Amino acid sequence: MKIIVDCFGGDNCPDAAVKGAVLALEEDKELNVALCGDEDKIQAVLNTLSYDQSRISIIDAKDVITNEDKPIDAIRNKENSSMVVALNAVKSDEYAGVVSSGNTGALLTGSTLIVGRIKGVSRATLAPAMPTLISGKYTILCDAGANVDCKASMLKEFAIMGSIYAKKAFGIENPTIGLLNNGAEEEKGNALTKEAYQVLKESNLNFVGNIEAQDYTSGKVDVIVADGFDGNVGLKATEGAAKAIMTLLKQGITNGGIKAKIGYLLLKPILKHIKGFLSTDTVGGAIFLGVKKVVVKAHGSSGEIPFKATILQAHRMAKGNLVSLIEDGVKNG
Amino acid sequence: MKIIVDCFGGDNCPDAAVKGAVLALEEDKELNVALCGDEDKIQAVLNTLSYDQSRISIIDAKDVITNEDKPIDAIRNKENSSMVVALNAVKSDEYAGVVSSGNTGALLTGSTLIVGRIKGVSRATLAPAMPTLISGKYTILCDAGANVDCKASMLKEFAIMGSIYAKKAFGIENPTIGLLNNGAEEEKGNALTKEAYQVLKESNLNFVGNIEAQDYTSGKVDVIVADGFDGNVGLKATEGAAKAIMTLLKQGITNGGIKAKIGYLLLKPILKHIKGFLSTDTVGGAIFLGVKKVVVKAHGSSGEIPFKATILQAHRMAKGNLVSLIEDGVKNG
Repeated sequence: MKIIVDCFGGDNCPDAAVKGAVLALEEDKELNVALCGDEDKIQAVLNTLSYDQSRISIIDAKDVITNEDKPIDAIRNKENSSMVVALNAVKSDEYAGVVSSGNTGALLTGSTLIVGRIKGVSRATLAPAMPTLISGKYTILCDAGANVDCKASMLKEFAIMGSIYAKKAFGIENPTIGLLNNGAEEEKGNALTKEAYQVLKESNLNFVGNIEAQDYTSGKVDVIVADGFDGNVGLKATEGAAKAIMTLLKQGITNGGIKAKIGYLLLKPILKHIKGFLSTDTVGGAIFLGVKKVVVKAHGSSGEIPFKATILQAHRMAKGNLVSLIEDGVKNG
Repeated sequence: MKIIVDCFGGDNCPDAAVKGAVLALEEDKELNVALCGDEDKIQAVLNTLSYDQSRISIIDAKDVITNEDKPIDAIRNKENSSMVVALNAVKSDEYAGVVSSGNTGALLTGSTLIVGRIKGVSRATLAPAMPTLISGKYTILCDAGANVDCKASMLKEFAIMGSIYAKKAFGIENPTIGLLNNGAEEEKGNALTKEAYQVLKESNLNFVGNIEAQDYTSGKVDVIVADGFDGNVGLKATEGAAKAIMTLLKQGITNGGIKAKIGYLLLKPILKHIKGFLSTDTVGGAIFLGVKKVVVKAHGSSGEIPFKATILQAHRMAKGNLVSLIEDGVKNG
């Protein structure tokens, strides 16, 4: 079971991708990886490392999709880019999944256009796992921004896929599903969420009702279902506010004289813990649910540790037959 | 120029409302207030205070709308509630505005049904001022949740009203307007924001393009325009994340032993500053733009200081002719 690692397009590429892949191979003896991108540059990084050559291969691809590229144009025109080559390669039975830290929009577009959607899935969904106030608990958000102007039936599909993923990724037997809304009561919402509420209520899912955006961090539900526009707004607002608080804290400490600096040193373990809370470095990347292979987006700024985690995550999902479970789930949903 | 204070419905009522009104009278010698609610209970609080009797009056109203009441039912059926009595009273020329810390939905519904919309305004908008990372700078959000399923023309109205309010409330000559979107580029968005982008671009407003939800706290623009569903999601996510970080910090300090406690004492001024950042207690409440009188929602948990700030805010907006400026703005927009 081989995972393709797109080694270009992220901030720390190819180093972080290649090193992360080698670390993943060390940790998971069943894993095989194919590193995709400029062979010479990948080999140059590999030459600095010791690794099991029998479980690693290179797929050469000279071009790179950057974050400035427009997704649809990049997928259509940059056919020799590491991302497009990786997405074409993963269609073969030899490979089970792709990990990339490159342009998110291009990865989503390419996954749909090149890899293709699972039969019965009308839209694939970008599903990051978000840290919560409950230690060790993550809430999966679908959709985080891949689809706007959704219909209620699409939100139901997201709920099915998110539920299956939560079960596989975090071992939750019957994941709770919350619908992102502008109020907790059943009658609240816009046209979409009012309809989606009824659709979810009548489904076999463990639907627990509406949640509000403060529940991105509360740990109240296992899966938050949302139109991608709203999901994206809530996610970016959450990240933005958390960063704002940490920025204020940092500014205060920097400008606060010796007392503040000693205070900082004494609180350092706690602040480190909070920084850890803000990060999903150890649980992997945002998975793209609904396409025919496992596709996971590592954060653009990923270093080797997040890359390792994301590669291991992709492998676990591939071994767990996530794609065929989703196919069955959507069929029976 | 008299402001009506709805003295019931909030967490600390009537004490906070009555005391806040007396503080406001002390600070602003041009202000007159009418306290609305159960006369005996209001008088009981007044009896504990010294105040200028010539500038204070009481409008008796025995009933109260609670947060559990459904807005439309409460406005229709609780005709003797302090909120409904206040909203009916404010229609008279004697009064310029209402401040309430009661049920937000009821206040919005009542403002529209009883006070009525300004001619040319298709929907009134709830517009809180949000603190940002730029010291002393607030970003006004319209709409924060009063209207869902908006049209592009409504977002333009929000932008006009928000711009006039930003000018009046914060003295900003030509307020910058950002459109809440799921990406910064012009072509990003859902059907609504793509259309609204073009409408705003062609307007006379100082439209600076799309902003993303992390800009709730960045201070990048003076006014964020959004459909109320999305605006609400971003606002609650921002508040939720900020609270989550502060909760983690508190938990860490509580469980961190003596070192953490000393660290906390040393960093206390900074943490207090951050807590201040999270609060809008000194700038007042969320104004409801587009109705024929000034209506301001004080936070449900307001104590006397936030109440005072909100009453003063309502008075400033009334003196600044906010309502007629909005009428002109919408007519010429």
